[in-house]
Amino acid sequence: MSAPLEINPYVKNIQQLQSQKLARRSEQIQEDIRRGSITSFKEVIDVSSGNPHSGGLRPLTFVRQVLAACFYPELLDSDGLKADVKQRAEKLLKTCVGGSVGCYTNTAGIPEVIHGITEFISRRDGGVPCDPQNIFISSGSQWCLSNILKVLVNTKSSLPCAVLSPVPCYPTTLMSLRAQGGLHVPYRLTEEGGWVLKGAELQRALQSAQGVSNPVALYVVNPGNPAGLVQSRASIQEVIRFVYENRLFLLADEVYQDCVYGENSCFVSYKQVLMEMGPPYSHSVELASFHSASKGVIGECGLRGGYVELVNVDQAVMDYIYKMFSLDSCASVSGQMVLDLMTNPPQPGEPSYPLYCQEKEEIRRTLVHNALKATEAMNLLLGFSCQPVEGGAFMFPRVDLPQRAIQRAQEAELPADMFYCMRLLEEAGLMVIPGCDYQQEEGTYHIRICIMVHEEVLDELLRRLRTFHNKFMKEFS
Amino acid sequence: MSAPLEINPYVKNIQQLQSQKLARRSEQIQEDIRRGSITSFKEVIDVSSGNPHSGGLRPLTFVRQVLAACFYPELLDSDGLKADVKQRAEKLLKTCVGGSVGCYTNTAGIPEVIHGITEFISRRDGGVPCDPQNIFISSGSQWCLSNILKVLVNTKSSLPCAVLSPVPCYPTTLMSLRAQGGLHVPYRLTEEGGWVLKGAELQRALQSAQGVSNPVALYVVNPGNPAGLVQSRASIQEVIRFVYENRLFLLADEVYQDCVYGENSCFVSYKQVLMEMGPPYSHSVELASFHSASKGVIGECGLRGGYVELVNVDQAVMDYIYKMFSLDSCASVSGQMVLDLMTNPPQPGEPSYPLYCQEKEEIRRTLVHNALKATEAMNLLLGFSCQPVEGGAFMFPRVDLPQRAIQRAQEAELPADMFYCMRLLEEAGLMVIPGCDYQQEEGTYHIRICIMVHEEVLDELLRRLRTFHNKFMKEFS
Ligand SMILES: Cc1ncc(COP(=O)(O)O)c(C=O)c1O
Ligand SMILES: Cc1ncc(COP(=O)(O)O)c(C=O)c1O
Repeated sequence: MSAPLEINPYVKNIQQLQSQKLARRSEQIQEDIRRGSITSFKEVIDVSSGNPHSGGLRPLTFVRQVLAACFYPELLDSDGLKADVKQRAEKLLKTCVGGSVGCYTNTAGIPEVIHGITEFISRRDGGVPCDPQNIFISSGSQWCLSNILKVLVNTKSSLPCAVLSPVPCYPTTLMSLRAQGGLHVPYRLTEEGGWVLKGAELQRALQSAQGVSNPVALYVVNPGNPAGLVQSRASIQEVIRFVYENRLFLLADEVYQDCVYGENSCFVSYKQVLMEMGPPYSHSVELASFHSASKGVIGECGLRGGYVELVNVDQAVMDYIYKMFSLDSCASVSGQMVLDLMTNPPQPGEPSYPLYCQEKEEIRRTLVHNALKATEAMNLLLGFSCQPVEGGAFMFPRVDLPQRAIQRAQEAELPADMFYCMRLLEEAGLMVIPGCDYQQEEGTYHIRICIMVHEEVLDELLRRLRTFHNKFMKEFS
Repeated sequence: MSAPLEINPYVKNIQQLQSQKLARRSEQIQEDIRRGSITSFKEVIDVSSGNPHSGGLRPLTFVRQVLAACFYPELLDSDGLKADVKQRAEKLLKTCVGGSVGCYTNTAGIPEVIHGITEFISRRDGGVPCDPQNIFISSGSQWCLSNILKVLVNTKSSLPCAVLSPVPCYPTTLMSLRAQGGLHVPYRLTEEGGWVLKGAELQRALQSAQGVSNPVALYVVNPGNPAGLVQSRASIQEVIRFVYENRLFLLADEVYQDCVYGENSCFVSYKQVLMEMGPPYSHSVELASFHSASKGVIGECGLRGGYVELVNVDQAVMDYIYKMFSLDSCASVSGQMVLDLMTNPPQPGEPSYPLYCQEKEEIRRTLVHNALKATEAMNLLLGFSCQPVEGGAFMFPRVDLPQRAIQRAQEAELPADMFYCMRLLEEAGLMVIPGCDYQQEEGTYHIRICIMVHEEVLDELLRRLRTFHNKFMKEFS
C-alpha cells in the first residue's frame, strides 16, 4: 500500500525516547518476577515519571468523595458523606448539561468551573484580574500546549518556526513541537548554582537561530522539570523583558506551581510578574500559562485535567485557538471537576477541612523531606553531584561515569547514561530516566528521579541506588 | 506583536460552523429566560448534538456504580453496592498503576482494558481475531481520528493530501482534516432511498481529485451521522474493493454501531467484512475503525473514552501512530474504564444483570419509538421530507424552504437553513443544526435533530417544531 511511504514527515521526525525502551524492558522484568525467574527484587520501583499515587502518595479524600458522588448521585442520599462533600457534588452536577457527568460540555470547559479557576488565579496573583474568556480547559495541560503550538507554528513560513526551549527540557513539549514541524532552539540552564536561567544565554540562543529559523516563542518550565529550579521574581522579569524585546510568545509551563519546597523559594506566576511590571509589558507580552491537576499535592494525573490561561492574545488568534480546542469536543468532565476541586479546596469551618489539611500537610512534609534526604544521599555517592532541589517533582543529579562504562555503552550503541539506567533497572529493579532524553548538555550524564513518593519508597529506592551504584563503579573503574 | 500575522494558515483555514453562532445565541436566550424577559418557553430544548443524558436518557446504573467505587474505593466496604459491581471495581483498580485512577496509564491504554476490547471486537465480528497491539485508546474517538489524520496527511507532498469524505458529513472530521493541511474530496450520499453510498459516486469523486490533490484515505461513517443510513454488507464490500483498487487508507467511523433500529438493518463492521472477503483484501487493506463510549445506550460523552483498531497497518506506521498518541500521555482513566464497562457488560446470572438489561432495553425501545415517530411527524410537515432512519442518533430531514424565506436569508447574509434554525431557536426555543454545517448538496436545505432523547422531550420538540414551522411557512409563502 502507498500510505507507509507518504506519511507526514514531521511525525517521522519525532525523536525516539530511551525511556520507551526502558518501559518495555520493565514490562518484561515484571513478567519475569511474576514467573519467578527474577528473585533478587520483589517489584520494580518505577520513579521514571511524576505519578504520585504510584509512589504510594494517597489521593485526597475530599476530592475522591466529591467525584464519586458526581458519578453516582444516589450517594448523595447516603449517610457516608459529609455535608460539604454533598453540597459540592450537587453544585458541580448542576453545572453539567442534563445534570450528568456524561454530557459534553462547552468547548473551553464548564463555565462555572472556568469561573472558579479565574478566582483561584486572581487570589494566587495578589488580586490581578483574570478573564474567563482567556481560559481553556483540556484533558491534561500537555494537550493545551500542543494546541497552542499548532496555532503558533506555521510550516508555510519561509524559515521553519522555532521555539526557544531550555536544556535540559521536558521532552514531550519538544516532541509536540517537532510533530508540528517546528524547531527547537536550545538555551542552557546553568547547572552550577541550581540550574539557573541566565539572560545572556537567552540572547546567545536567539542569535544562534538567526538566519536558520524564525523564532516565534519562548518556552519556560517553572518550577522546573527535570531540573528543580524555582525562578525568582528578578529572573522572571528578565525573561519577560527578553520576550518583549524580541517579540516572542511566552509559553510558561507552571504545572508544578504547587510543588515548591526550597527554604527560600516561593512560586510567583509569570502572569503576576507581567502585570506588576506595568506597560508596555503588561499590555503587550503574549503569554500562555499552563496548569494541571496532575501535579502538586492533588496528583491526579489519570483524570487528565489541565488548563491554559492566555494573556494579551489578539482576538483573532483567540478565535483560532478556540477552533483548535473545538476539534476535540471538550475535556473529560472528571478532569474538569478535579480542576475545580484543586483550585477551590474546602475552607475553614467546613466539615471536610480538617482532614483535607491534614492529608495535604502530610504530602507537603513528605516532599520537603524527600528533596533534602535524596539530595544528601545522592551527593554521598561517588561521581554523583546533585543541585539543591527547590521545587517540581524530580531530582536531576549529574553522574560522572567512568571512562570504561562510557566505552562499554558505545559498544552497546547506547548513550552512556542510558546504559547506566538499563543496568539499574535490570540489576536493581529501579526505573529512572537517562538525561539523554532531556537534551542535556553534550558530554554530561544525568538521571531523572521522581521524588513525589512515599518516604518508605524513597528509602528503598535510595538503598537500591546506592548498592547498585557502588557495584557499577567498582566494575568499571 | 508578530504572532497574529504568523499563525498556522491551516488553522486559519478551519471552517466556521453556524452551530457556534447558534450556541452563543442560545446562551443569551437562556440568560433572558432566567431574567424573565422571555416567557414564551421555559427552557431551550437543545437537540443540536448527540448528548443522550441531556435529552433525559439516564446513565446505566451498573456503569456509574463501578466508576464511583473506582474513584472512592472506600465504597467497596459499604453494603450499598452489589457483589458484581464491587468485583468489577476491584478488578479495574488492580489494572491501574498504584491501584489508583489518578495515575497515568500506558500510552495506548491500560493493557487489561485493551484486552477486554479485543474480546468484544472478536465476539462482535463472529470470532475474527483482534490483536491488542492494534488498539489505541484515547480521550474520545475524535481524538484518535485526529491522530491518525496527522500521520496520514503529509503537507510536504507535491499535491495536497486529500481524504474522500461523504456529503453530508460530520463536520469535526473535516475540520481536523483542514487543520492538518488536508483537503476534503466530497462524495455524495444519495438522499432518495435513504442516503445510500454508491460505488459509482466514489469513482466520480476520486476522478474529480485527479491532478488537484493526492487522495490518501476514504472516510465512511456507518451508521451515519448526520444521515441515519446503516450500510449493508454488499455496500461495505463495494467500499472495500474501491479502497483496495485505489490504495486508499480506510477510515471507518463506527461510533454508532450500538444504535441500529431499522427493521431490516443490522450493524456489520468493516473489519468483519474485510476478513470475510479474504485475500488479497483481508491482508492488505489498511483500516482504522473507531468506536466510542459517547454514543449508543451507554451515552457517556462527557467521560471521553474512545478507541481505534488498526488493521493491516505497516509496523513502521504503527510506530509513528504510537508516537502521536504518546504526545498526550494517555486517555483519561474514567474514559478507559467506561470503555471496559461498555465492551464487557454484566452477564446473565450476575446480580446487576437484570437491572442492566432493563435499563438498556428501555433506551433501545425509546430510540426505535423516536425514530419512527419523528419520521412520521416530520413527513407530515409541509415542505419536509425525511428518509427512514435506520441507525445513528440523528434525523436529517430535508426542508424545502419558500423562495421568500431564501431571499430574506440572503439579505441577512445567512444560509437559508441557518436562517430557519435561528428563527426556530429564537421563536420556539428549539436548537437544531442547519444542513449547511454538513456540506450538504448545493441548493438543498436540511436540519439535523438528535433523537436520542426521552420520549417526552421528543413530543415537546415535535410540538414546538410543528407550531413554528406552520407559522414560518405562512409568513414566507
Ligand atoms: C513540565 C510538564 N508539563 C506538562 C506536563 C503534563 O501534564 P498533564 O498531565 O497535565 O498533561 C508534565 C507532566 O509530567 C510536565 O512535567
Ligand atoms: C460520526 C462521529 N464520530 C465521532 C464522534 C465523536 O465521538 P467522541 O465523543 O468519541 O469523540 C461523533 C460525535 O458526535 C460522531 O458523530
